Parts: sequence; structure tokens; C-alpha cells
Amino acid sequence: MAARPVSRRSAVDPFLAMDVLRKATAREAAGEAILHLELGQPGWPAPAPALEAARAALAADRLGYTEALGRASLRARIARHYGEAYGLDLDPARVVVTTGSSGGFTLAFLALFDAGAKVALAEPGYPAYRNVMRALGLKPLALPVGEAERWQPTVAQLVAAAEEGARGLLIASPANPTGTMLGEAAMKALAETCAARGVALISDEIYHGLTYERPATTALAHSDEAVVVNSFSKFYCMTGWRIGWMVVPEGLERVVERLAQNLFISPPTLSQIAAEAAFDAKEELEARRAVYAGNREVLAKKLAAAGLTGFAPADGAFYLYADVRRFTNDSAAFAEAMLAEIAVAATPGLDFDPGRGAGYLRLSYAAEADVIAEAARRIGDWLP
Amino acid sequence: MAARPVSRRSAVDPFLAMDVLRKATAREAAGEAILHLELGQPGWPAPAPALEAARAALAADRLGYTEALGRASLRARIARHYGEAYGLDLDPARVVVTTGSSGGFTLAFLALFDAGAKVALAEPGYPAYRNVMRALGLKPLALPVGEAERWQPTVAQLVAAAEEGARGLLIASPANPTGTMLGEAAMKALAETCAARGVALISDEIYHGLTYERPATTALAHSDEAVVVNSFSKFYCMTGWRIGWMVVPEGLERVVERLAQNLFISPPTLSQIAAEAAFDAKEELEARRAVYAGNREVLAKKLAAAGLTGFAPADGAFYLYADVRRFTNDSAAFAEAMLAEIAVAATPGLDFDPGRGAGYLRLSYAAEADVIAEAARRIGDWLP
Repeated sequence: MAARPVSRRSAVDPFLAMDVLRKATAREAAGEAILHLELGQPGWPAPAPALEAARAALAADRLGYTEALGRASLRARIARHYGEAYGLDLDPARVVVTTGSSGGFTLAFLALFDAGAKVALAEPGYPAYRNVMRALGLKPLALPVGEAERWQPTVAQLVAAAEEGARGLLIASPANPTGTMLGEAAMKALAETCAARGVALISDEIYHGLTYERPATTALAHSDEAVVVNSFSKFYCMTGWRIGWMVVPEGLERVVERLAQNLFISPPTLSQIAAEAAFDAKEELEARRAVYAGNREVLAKKLAAAGLTGFAPADGAFYLYADVRRFTNDSAAFAEAMLAEIAVAATPGLDFDPGRGAGYLRLSYAAEADVIAEAARRIGDWLP
Repeated sequence: MAARPVSRRSAVDPFLAMDVLRKATAREAAGEAILHLELGQPGWPAPAPALEAARAALAADRLGYTEALGRASLRARIARHYGEAYGLDLDPARVVVTTGSSGGFTLAFLALFDAGAKVALAEPGYPAYRNVMRALGLKPLALPVGEAERWQPTVAQLVAAAEEGARGLLIASPANPTGTMLGEAAMKALAETCAARGVALISDEIYHGLTYERPATTALAHSDEAVVVNSFSKFYCMTGWRIGWMVVPEGLERVVERLAQNLFISPPTLSQIAAEAAFDAKEELEARRAVYAGNREVLAKKLAAAGLTGFAPADGAFYLYADVRRFTNDSAAFAEAMLAEIAVAATPGLDFDPGRGAGYLRLSYAAEADVIAEAARRIGDWLP
């Protein structure tokens, strides 16, 4: 009997965050209260108009497949959002509704790149980027960024990557795990360099709306050729609904449509209906953003008071990426001890940066205010 | 300015069915009534207990991410279903909840095969199989099947494919577009040959439950190494919910889990909750199956009376795959004329069989009884 095959490309890294979550969940099952600062998801359900639209559709709609690119009304509503939020005039034909931003990345990578293509991206960064790239045969080209680069890739790094043969650049602003944003000028310079060198620009904008100093800039303001990936998971609090969108350059719609038909058929119908209504919940969602803003202040202040001061600039999203090298050279063990001793869960930096991540910890402040305040207090007391 | 890249692998075939659908939808928008026999989806919404569970969860659940492999209670319920439906004892750890069967195929292909691997499959067959394989770098190896093979791959074809280097065999029983099933003995022989030759067996079982002569056999009854892909879309009438499952061999769970974490995060939460409750709707769903059974009789009889007699054995699913060579050598034009002249939409065989499909037409009888009866009458009157 011969052995069943297993692919090499499926040997992607597991998320350490998931192991932390598993341990935290096991302790919760045993009756213990855990403060969750390891999760990249809001502490609230979808906003009221989204829930109401879903309720109505459950009663009235057959909820069959939709067009592969999504319901026309949702695509039009998303296009209108670009006028409202950024002052851009966007053709709804360029909007693709996706099964979360996850679906968007798969479609973007497959539409743009053949196997073997190199794609540059910042390190630290969201680990699924490089894992999905590898599973799809791409070669992630890590651009190490830190304080010196303000945690975002520079034009010099992009030029060097292009000279190494990079066919794409993936940016995220605000970024995960740092929350750090690209400024208007930096975004423009990267977009222009991509255009000049025939490098595809993919811009992850899933944390747009969750900013604390100034609004985020979209790659679309600087390039008609950028592929933008966005999501209803973060600002709109709809993680489990698995619904997001892309904006693609003219001419790529048909390519993405064919891929989407075959790979996904269509995004979840009820989620599409609910997502469209979520745009009517700006006030409710702004109030939640205000909670994150407060959490961010409290957490940063308490940790700084306890001697934990090295954060990446947390312009947006809901994370602090903390330099813990003063306390440890093994942030995975550090996170485990924190969970064991004070029941606070956080994510070791190695998930985001296989190189330097052992010196960093990601703390999410997406939970409700009392959870974050209590976690900040415990961490402050716990640090030596 | 250099050109933005577009991949070669995204140049997959579009679905002709989608073009038919587009034309049909345009005419409906203009006020015309179209009889839809081109759609591979039931005419009903999800069953009552599924809708009720979704309603309750909307009110009570935050609907965040779940574990990547799905909610434990749903995985356990699916495992129990294997006891109820097939008399098999299945460890819930081997059950993976997926974002439709589409998600299952992507995970199966990536988990089992590296780029360049050859995977054998019947032709005619569901077009997304070969399109997704190509997008993921695999080489589909078409096994032409027809009346002589009872529209399913034979052991001789499998052996020949293995000798050509095939690393996998994808089977579907009941199959789309034919509805034809593999018998117990044929399934067993294919499974044993796969095991003997180290060929991975992927079994698409999404039409299980929708059978008219005898129940379908699962590959799991004949192989612990098979990867089974299933779905709540067809028997359970939950197409737009995008929810399905896989059963994977022991040892592959962790591989699939890592891929699923990165590619999907988790399947839609509300759909998982609704799907679990759908198992409580056997009577309601059986009544719908009885409608299909009636439709199948009516359609086959009326078409036969009009001289359209060559069907693949429609053991299950809700399709007739009709040999229309007596009337045309261009079934795409034939389908277009049928839509234009009698407002009945059907799918040209070329979607399923680029070789011989021009002589075939797929008619779905998943709609309600009056729609199918009226369509059968119109086609009967229309045929020359």
C-alpha cells in the first residue's frame, strides 16, 4: 500500500496566537476568567441596522447564491462609501464583494501573480500574508521595518525589492501588529514607485475607520492600479460574518470574477445584506471607536508607568506592539507566564516577525473598557 | 510606466451557465417571466429549524470568529450524521467545517498536492474542479466517460492515469451534470486501487440525500484515507449560506487546520449555527426531495415524448444531462434559442465537457413542481 500524498506547500506556520487562545479557552472552560488581549476582533456584535437587515432577510429572502462579485446594491453602496470617506468617485464595477478580506487576498494573489513570483511586504506583519502566499506558490520577500522606518516599508526598500525581481508590494495601513500608518506622502511615493516599475500594489485597508490621530489614506487616492482589500470585520464589527471587499483596477474585474466564480461561487448572502445596512450605523460604530481610543490611552499610560514604554506608533487599528526586551528575550514564554500568573492573554511577536518577534508582544485593546483597564492594572502590577 | 502584472493561471474558463443566467436576469428585469432550469440550486430557503436557529443567534450571539475547523458542536453533529446515514462511526476530530464545498476543494487540493501534480477526474464534470486545480497549479487529467462507462470513471482509467503519474482521483457521486452514481462495488474498487497506488481519493458527496433509486455510498465506507467533501447547499437548501464540510484522514486535520486558519480564518458563524439545526429538518427536506423525484419523472417523460430520450442515468442530484445531438451540434446556440423563444433557461454541456459538450444540455429540476411541469410542456412543444 503506497502512502497518501501530503503537499509541501501546506507546511505553513501555525499561529502562536491560536495556541494562546486554545490555552486560554481551556482555562475558561475550567471556570477561570481570562482577559483576552490576544484577539484581533471587536468586543461587540454587528451594529443594530446590520442585525435588523439580517433578521428581515431571514424572513423574506430565499438566500440563494448571488452574483460572484456580490449583490449590485452592496457594490454600489461600497462605491458610494469611497465618496463619503475619501472624496473619491468610484465606479461600482470595480468593487468586488469577498468572503472576508481572506477571500480578497486569495483572489488578489491568484489574479496578479503566477507561481514563483516574489511579493514584498513589511516584517513584522500579519502572518497569513506570507502563509497564503507560500500556499499559492508565491515567494514573500520580507522588508524588515522598525523604528527607523516608522514600521512601514520605504521607497528605498521597494526599489531594492524590485531590483531583486519583486512583482508586487503588499502594504497595510494601519498595520497589524503595530497600528502604525503610512502618511499621505509615503503612500504616494510607494504608489508612484510601484507604477514606475510595474510592481503590483496591494493595499490592506481593513483597519480604516479605526484611527486616532488623523484619517487613513487609501491607495486609491494615489493609484488607479492598486488592488485594495477591505473588510467589514474590524470597524463594522462583523468578523464571524466573513464579509469584505476589494477594489480592483479597470480590466481586472473579469479576471477576478472568473476566479471568484470558481473558488467561492459567491460571498455569504445574508452577510452581504447585513453589511450593506452596516453603513447606516456610523454613530454606533463611532461610539465604539471612542472606546478603543480610551482603551489605547489607558493601556499605554499604565504600561508606561510600569516601565513598558517601547511601542510602535499606534496611529490606528486596536493594537499596541510592545518592545518587551527589557523583560525577556522569549516573548512566547513571557506571554505564557502572563496567562498563567495573571490570566491576561496576549500574542507573542513571533507570529508577526520570525526574526525579531521574540522581543515583542502584541496587545489588542479591542475589548470593552473595563476589561482593558483591569488588564492594564494587572500587567502593571505584574511587571518586575 | 511599466505594466501591472496579470497572472496566466487566472485565465480559467468562464461558466457559460453564468452568461445564460445574465441574459435570463436581464430579460426578467425587463418584466419577462423566465423558467430557470439552469441553476444548480434548490427552489426553497433553508429549512425552518435552520432559520429559527439563525434568528435566535442573531439576538443572542456576538457572532465572532470560531475555531478554524468550525464549532465543536457542529463537528460533533456532522460526525453523528455519519452514524445515522451510513452506519459509520466517525471521530469528530476528522470533521472540518468549510466555507461551502468550494472552501473544501481549495483546502483538499492545497493540503494534498504541490504545484505540477496531476489529478484525474471524469469528463463531463463540474467545471470549477478543473478551473480551481489550474489556478492552484495542478494538472487536471480528464477521464472521458459516457454511456459505456455509465458516466463514471473506471478502474482501468484510474490505473492508466496512475501510470501517467496521477497523484489524485476526484470522484463525484451523484455527479454533476449527469446525476449518475457510482455503485457500491465500483466505489470500493476505485478506493482500493487508489490505496494500492498511493493516489489520493477526493470524493465529492454534495448531492448525497438527493437520490431516487437507492442511497448513495460514501467513500468513507471503503477508505479511511479518502478526503470527503460535502455541503449544506443541496439537500439542506443552504446555497447562499456558504457552508459545507470535509472529512479528512487521520493526520491531515492539522495540515488542513493550518491552511484554513490562514486562508479562511473560520467559516461563517451564523451559517454554522443554522447548519447544525438543519439536521433536525429531515422530514421537511424529505418532502422537498419528493418534489424533485416528481419533477424528474415529469421532465423525463415529457421530453421523451417529444423525442429527447438520451439521458445519463439520473440516479441522484437534480439534473438531466440530455443528448441533444438529434437536434443540434451546438448546444450553446440551442440553449440561447430556447431562452429566446420559449423563455426556458438551461446550461450548455460545454461547461462540463469541453470536448463533447456541444452535443449536450443540462436541465436542472430543482425548481418547484409547477415551474418544471410548465418548462417540460414548453420544451416538448418547441422541439421540432
